[in-house]
Amino acid sequence: MKFATASIHGRTFVGLLLEDGRILDILRAEKKLFELETVPGDLVQCIQLGEKFINHVKQLEQWARKEEETESYLYTLKEVLLLAPIPRPAKNIYCVGKNYRDHALELGTEADIPEHVMLFSKTPTSVIGHEEKIDPHLHLTTELDYEGELAVVIGKKGKQINKEDALDYVFGYTIVNDITARDLQARHKQFLLGKSLDTSCPMGPVIVHQSSFAHLDFEIETKVNGEVRQRGQGKQMIFSIPEIISTISQGTTLEPGDIIATGTPAGVGKGFKPPKYLRTGDVVEITIEPIGTLRNYVGE
Amino acid sequence: MKFATASIHGRTFVGLLLEDGRILDILRAEKKLFELETVPGDLVQCIQLGEKFINHVKQLEQWARKEEETESYLYTLKEVLLLAPIPRPAKNIYCVGKNYRDHALELGTEADIPEHVMLFSKTPTSVIGHEEKIDPHLHLTTELDYEGELAVVIGKKGKQINKEDALDYVFGYTIVNDITARDLQARHKQFLLGKSLDTSCPMGPVIVHQSSFAHLDFEIETKVNGEVRQRGQGKQMIFSIPEIISTISQGTTLEPGDIIATGTPAGVGKGFKPPKYLRTGDVVEITIEPIGTLRNYVGE
Repeated sequence: MKFATASIHGRTFVGLLLEDGRILDILRAEKKLFELETVPGDLVQCIQLGEKFINHVKQLEQWARKEEETESYLYTLKEVLLLAPIPRPAKNIYCVGKNYRDHALELGTEADIPEHVMLFSKTPTSVIGHEEKIDPHLHLTTELDYEGELAVVIGKKGKQINKEDALDYVFGYTIVNDITARDLQARHKQFLLGKSLDTSCPMGPVIVHQSSFAHLDFEIETKVNGEVRQRGQGKQMIFSIPEIISTISQGTTLEPGDIIATGTPAGVGKGFKPPKYLRTGDVVEITIEPIGTLRNYVGE
Repeated sequence: MKFATASIHGRTFVGLLLEDGRILDILRAEKKLFELETVPGDLVQCIQLGEKFINHVKQLEQWARKEEETESYLYTLKEVLLLAPIPRPAKNIYCVGKNYRDHALELGTEADIPEHVMLFSKTPTSVIGHEEKIDPHLHLTTELDYEGELAVVIGKKGKQINKEDALDYVFGYTIVNDITARDLQARHKQFLLGKSLDTSCPMGPVIVHQSSFAHLDFEIETKVNGEVRQRGQGKQMIFSIPEIISTISQGTTLEPGDIIATGTPAGVGKGFKPPKYLRTGDVVEITIEPIGTLRNYVGE
């Protein structure tokens, strides 16, 4: 199951992306099939409903597959505008730093390979959706960089979660581009400011439900203007997703809709000699199957 | 004007703390005086109304001063429970690191005095109110520390704000105790995790409106079990409040209700030899006039 937040004619809805590429307006489909309107209009509120929501959507999905016509609750992807799946997170996005050995090395030395999970955050104001523009902030940075990452979306509230139970707290997975102004990151020591420019957190295109995603076996690829820059595999992560969730939650309550970007593999712009920073007009594409490709353009 | 979020008999309301120590339920008072109910039940929504809200409250304040009786919209402080003025911020709390020279030196050397604003964040789940308990997280840390700080509350949306205009974007000021697990802060390199334990952001007791606060001329004092540990003055800050607001907003949109803790003066537990970390049963009191005293107990 693939969940999206989308808009059509200015109306925002929670959508289910079907295998044939059509997108189902979950609330409208529920009204048609069950003559009910229980599904919230906000994906985080849906996530909070837990299994009840998933079971409900499964029924709708089976029914929608059989629908031939494009009705008022079933659209082609061309008709809608995909927003970030969670357009306005209720807190900063958690981000894991240096979670791929080769990436830690391309920016530093063996001493930079972390022994413990390194965590920083990006503000919710930095989130944009698939195909939205990344503002180059030319007045502020000359070192804008991309970082393709798998992001975990938390499904239920938890604290002091054991590694063994951690995956029970995952709703699903999406892609995040952890856009970073390297000059600001260095100048301000802590990473927050260099990671939180407006439009510096492209997210999407959808959230794939955890039941359809192999968190140890995924591949990630980042292209800039069609050139492959990053290629990584889930099994290369220094800290696994269960370890990350367990570490954060030892003292901090995780909540439904929380987003954790799990780190980027080698191949960021700063890692090249000379560096390959983003320029106006560039297109960045990050692919993780079965989530899809998150594509964004650099431009004002 | 002093604004609070408080609850009575389980009902939460936005309150105005009067000079005589009584607290006015703004919404109920409005209903009585104007036969209107325009004031939102949430302080951040009130802040979003801007000058209109302030002018409205000024009228209510003048009227309430004359009221003799304790009616259903006017309570003594003993009757109510003060919550954090903004109990659930809509994003992480911005925090400035090492903004007092003597504090930078007590934890390091001249090289640790920052040349640029150092920014990290605390999660919204860490916020608690005046007199609430700070969980010592004994399973996780043996180095829990206090940091008394002045916090700025943003009043209106802005980006690329000039230093000269920055104070126009301030709604008011409150006190934050930037509770820090020093061992986690060091172990995880970036500060987020060591600063974001649940209950590690006591805030309050009230927000003083900017018209009643001299941001360059305040004094701050932190006591633990009655012993003075920190004493600082606003004029000692390395980066002034206008500089901080301007720096953040160069690339990141600030929004009404955003909170920026402006750094702590010398005298934190880690600065003593041997260190004076917090222990179960300790009481921490941070005073900045005219905001008042933020008091919290360490205990589960």
